[in-house]
Amino acid sequence: ELKQVVEDNVSGLDTMFVLVSGYMVFLMQCGFAMLTAGSVRTKNTKNVLLKNILDACVGAIAYYLFGWAFAYGGDSKINGFIGSGNFALSASSEGDFDDFTGFFFQWAFAATAATIVSGSVAERTSFYAYISYAFFLTAFVYPVVSHWVWGGGFLSNIFGHGMIDFAGCSVVHMVGGFAGLAGAAIVGPRYGRFNAEGKPVPMPGHSATLCTLGTFMLWFGWYGFNPGSALGISGGAYTVVARCAVTTTIAAAAGGITTLVLKKVMDHIFDLLAVLNGILAGLVAITACCAFVEVWAAVIIGAIGAAFPIHGAVGFWGALCSGIFNSKTYQAAAGLPDQQGGFVMDISEWKLFASNLVGCIIIVCWVLVLIVPFFFALNVMGLLRISESEELIGND
Amino acid sequence: ELKQVVEDNVSGLDTMFVLVSGYMVFLMQCGFAMLTAGSVRTKNTKNVLLKNILDACVGAIAYYLFGWAFAYGGDSKINGFIGSGNFALSASSEGDFDDFTGFFFQWAFAATAATIVSGSVAERTSFYAYISYAFFLTAFVYPVVSHWVWGGGFLSNIFGHGMIDFAGCSVVHMVGGFAGLAGAAIVGPRYGRFNAEGKPVPMPGHSATLCTLGTFMLWFGWYGFNPGSALGISGGAYTVVARCAVTTTIAAAAGGITTLVLKKVMDHIFDLLAVLNGILAGLVAITACCAFVEVWAAVIIGAIGAAFPIHGAVGFWGALCSGIFNSKTYQAAAGLPDQQGGFVMDISEWKLFASNLVGCIIIVCWVLVLIVPFFFALNVMGLLRISESEELIGND
Amino acid sequence: ELKQVVEDNVSGLDTMFVLVSGYMVFLMQCGFAMLTAGSVRTKNTKNVLLKNILDACVGAIAYYLFGWAFAYGGDSKINGFIGSGNFALSASSEGDFDDFTGFFFQWAFAATAATIVSGSVAERTSFYAYISYAFFLTAFVYPVVSHWVWGGGFLSNIFGHGMIDFAGCSVVHMVGGFAGLAGAAIVGPRYGRFNAEGKPVPMPGHSATLCTLGTFMLWFGWYGFNPGSALGISGGAYTVVARCAVTTTIAAAAGGITTLVLKKVMDHIFDLLAVLNGILAGLVAITACCAFVEVWAAVIIGAIGAAFPIHGAVGFWGALCSGIFNSKTYQAAAGLPDQQGGFVMDISEWKLFASNLVGCIIIVCWVLVLIVPFFFALNVMGLLRISESEELIGND
Repeated sequence: ELKQVVEDNVSGLDTMFVLVSGYMVFLMQCGFAMLTAGSVRTKNTKNVLLKNILDACVGAIAYYLFGWAFAYGGDSKINGFIGSGNFALSASSEGDFDDFTGFFFQWAFAATAATIVSGSVAERTSFYAYISYAFFLTAFVYPVVSHWVWGGGFLSNIFGHGMIDFAGCSVVHMVGGFAGLAGAAIVGPRYGRFNAEGKPVPMPGHSATLCTLGTFMLWFGWYGFNPGSALGISGGAYTVVARCAVTTTIAAAAGGITTLVLKKVMDHIFDLLAVLNGILAGLVAITACCAFVEVWAAVIIGAIGAAFPIHGAVGFWGALCSGIFNSKTYQAAAGLPDQQGGFVMDISEWKLFASNLVGCIIIVCWVLVLIVPFFFALNVMGLLRISESEELIGND
Repeated sequence: ELKQVVEDNVSGLDTMFVLVSGYMVFLMQCGFAMLTAGSVRTKNTKNVLLKNILDACVGAIAYYLFGWAFAYGGDSKINGFIGSGNFALSASSEGDFDDFTGFFFQWAFAATAATIVSGSVAERTSFYAYISYAFFLTAFVYPVVSHWVWGGGFLSNIFGHGMIDFAGCSVVHMVGGFAGLAGAAIVGPRYGRFNAEGKPVPMPGHSATLCTLGTFMLWFGWYGFNPGSALGISGGAYTVVARCAVTTTIAAAAGGITTLVLKKVMDHIFDLLAVLNGILAGLVAITACCAFVEVWAAVIIGAIGAAFPIHGAVGFWGALCSGIFNSKTYQAAAGLPDQQGGFVMDISEWKLFASNLVGCIIIVCWVLVLIVPFFFALNVMGLLRISESEELIGND
Repeated sequence: ELKQVVEDNVSGLDTMFVLVSGYMVFLMQCGFAMLTAGSVRTKNTKNVLLKNILDACVGAIAYYLFGWAFAYGGDSKINGFIGSGNFALSASSEGDFDDFTGFFFQWAFAATAATIVSGSVAERTSFYAYISYAFFLTAFVYPVVSHWVWGGGFLSNIFGHGMIDFAGCSVVHMVGGFAGLAGAAIVGPRYGRFNAEGKPVPMPGHSATLCTLGTFMLWFGWYGFNPGSALGISGGAYTVVARCAVTTTIAAAAGGITTLVLKKVMDHIFDLLAVLNGILAGLVAITACCAFVEVWAAVIIGAIGAAFPIHGAVGFWGALCSGIFNSKTYQAAAGLPDQQGGFVMDISEWKLFASNLVGCIIIVCWVLVLIVPFFFALNVMGLLRISESEELIGND
């Protein structure tokens, strides 16, 4: 009767909200592919496209077989370090699991983490390295972090308070960014990237149009990424969701305009690619706190975020912003327990900032401890980098 | 208890509907960027891409600081000319405003109005002009018009009846179109656009593929623009929304096919770019009345719209279509008061047509009165047009 | 009062779900256009783009005038072969029809069926042939098949059981695929496709980037195509919808990875275009049974699907998968009567497999019986193929 219909409406509404958000996050794969393709030289386009499309594919199989189990499988209260159980969604056949919506959304996030790295190591990394890496990240490295922060793991309770990273500055962008950084360092620069004096040589990408297309698609997808992280829109969640959409927009715009002005002042040019990067930095920066900050704070967060040079660093900054700008009122409105907000809002409160700071450091260590040996091992096996002649001719 | 759950479902459903529609409207920015990029010569691609991406960014900041306040801020009943209050969403920090959903959707519309102009003045306008223009339009020119028609302003009550422009033929497309027209006239034609005898010289764009991609994205986004303008899907609104989706489709198709046939008959070619323009004209034309007309009327509206050469003129035509084809029954079904419909449906009724006709004239005057001096002032300051050498070499 | 509000919520939720799904299916037009454009030689790009955009336009008018009437018009119980009534949605003006949501979704499907063929006959077919074909398919050939399987027609009841093709492996992909195959056979190969010894000559497309963009868009759109085929998300349908999203993802990934490995083993290359095809094959293969199979089955279905060379054959395979892997439990959960599932799940059950097998054969015959004479007639009239000189110079 009526009560059942209403409950089904709640489930239908939330399912649709999360799935549509997840579809939009999936489209970010396409955005990253276009952005990366436009940023490399023509001779390597096919190569980076294939790497990008394999993110989604390898990520899907890896997350299905292992990732979900490590992130959210089994009883999360038992183990603060790693989930277990429901490998290959085995529980679903026995009727003990039917959260396909959650699985879908989390897979899209895992694939995003994996794809962030592709730009960092483009044009010189072998396919074997890339596939191994994508598998390792989506099957294990990323899921464990998501367990810590979102799956009831130990970072969700650190300092008796816990990290708050609404949509994944640290969990997704910092993990992907630092993994990419480590990868790039170990793979080494592209051949000819530095001249005899060690000065960097510009290696312009082949298509600003593709970069723009990719950036717009990423911006669009971010509306799935950030508001979608409410994981539902029933109850009072619609106010949270709507706030996310607006703060995300404003931070993106602030990031873009900041870069425009900075580049004009410093280099005397209006620089499209810099503006695109600024927009993406603004988007990354607002990701952790989009649900909990005032709109004016989004301006600041995005603008400062745009000044950071590296994906991983922006993610770090964004995660700290939670501890700086979050409003306790909005956290409560989103159903969080009445804990501390950012210290700018109430100078006496420091626990959220401390949680996010320490949490981020732990996450960065985790990523590096796993990824650095992993890439070194690939290097020793001769599987990491393509040959010099292949690189000079191009992968295609 | 149950009543609260149901009410939250209504809010969640409407929020999701408006936000997803807004995301799709935002994607039209990408569509416009691709369409414009494909329509210009290679040497100016980066330039127009940057202009397009700044629409979204500048528009977001301008609409946040001023636009929303002029459009919907304060008590709309007090002032039929302009809204006031809630600048920079200041009321939200005090808990007096939380319609972030509405803000988001209206920002996406404002940015659309701004972006329409970019094609008109492409390849020869300076960045300073463009940024100033985008700010002026989204902060003031457009918001005031939207206040008049949608925010309880004087055009919503003209002739004791009021304009009906469901999704913004006049408010968005005519404003953007005529502003672009004025801009193009004052900036002057591109260097080499006319030969010594004053005949126009073809300046074909560099990529039909980008134009097609852009048009498809615009068509897709229009499903956010038109059906989304119901501003909710709860209550009985779902019938209104679904009608919009169908009339929008049919008008687009009718516009495309009309142009295909016209071009074949007149110039003996199957002309892709003309068909794309025809589709867009059909989409613009149906925008004002998509919720209130029969499907057969959509065929006529789109087909005739495709015969108009200019964005602004199609917008004008579309706004008049409300007064020609609107069905009173469907207006009532959408919750409008039982006023007059289009005169084709009932020959004795003229008030809607008169309201929309006079309203459009007033809006065009408003745009020209503001934009013409604005562009002249930029011109006098030497900020309007790039130098001849820059233009010949290309902006990139 | 409350009951009415709840019922309106159900309608609003389902309308929104189906419309958004339909918008995503529409975006597949753009995906196909990009994929096809990237797959042809530069000289024919404009040509195939126009063909693709006309699919949507011609399909809209044809489906509006005739298609819907033949598929779902009139009383479906009266006639197991073809629908009748409500041509040009005439019943809507009299208030006897208001399922605009259904019309929109089914139009998007019809246009998909039409667009599948465009790749098969690209670069050598005349516009007259293409327009006629698109009209014929969306006005008659496809609607009749959809009536048989989805509109209460005779295939929905064959063997006292009926076909189960959830999202249209046979109805959409097999119809489009076999029509394209017949078209390609009658039009003949492209000039220079085979050398003097009859060996095929490679004719590489001009842009792998466009192919990748198109494939990502298609994958994205498939989340409208497959989950959207639940035609609602109220009641308990949300579990069905979510399962579809996951099985669709896994089948796509399995298809892509299978092709990657196969190509590497056989031809010793990592082949981007092959992987894209593998993903699409995985997506086609899961279409018929996405709502009713275990996730592990999706791996198998997608992987095997990727081994088939032709769109139509994958559709056939996918339709058979219903009879092989469907779970009776999930069919019941989706509200189907408690009939038989796939024989792998219960070896004693064969009726579903037999229904789908025989149904597919009947559908293929129907398509060929209509399309072969149709293309021959065009050929006799000299309207089928462009001239050799046009083909060599390119259509653009």
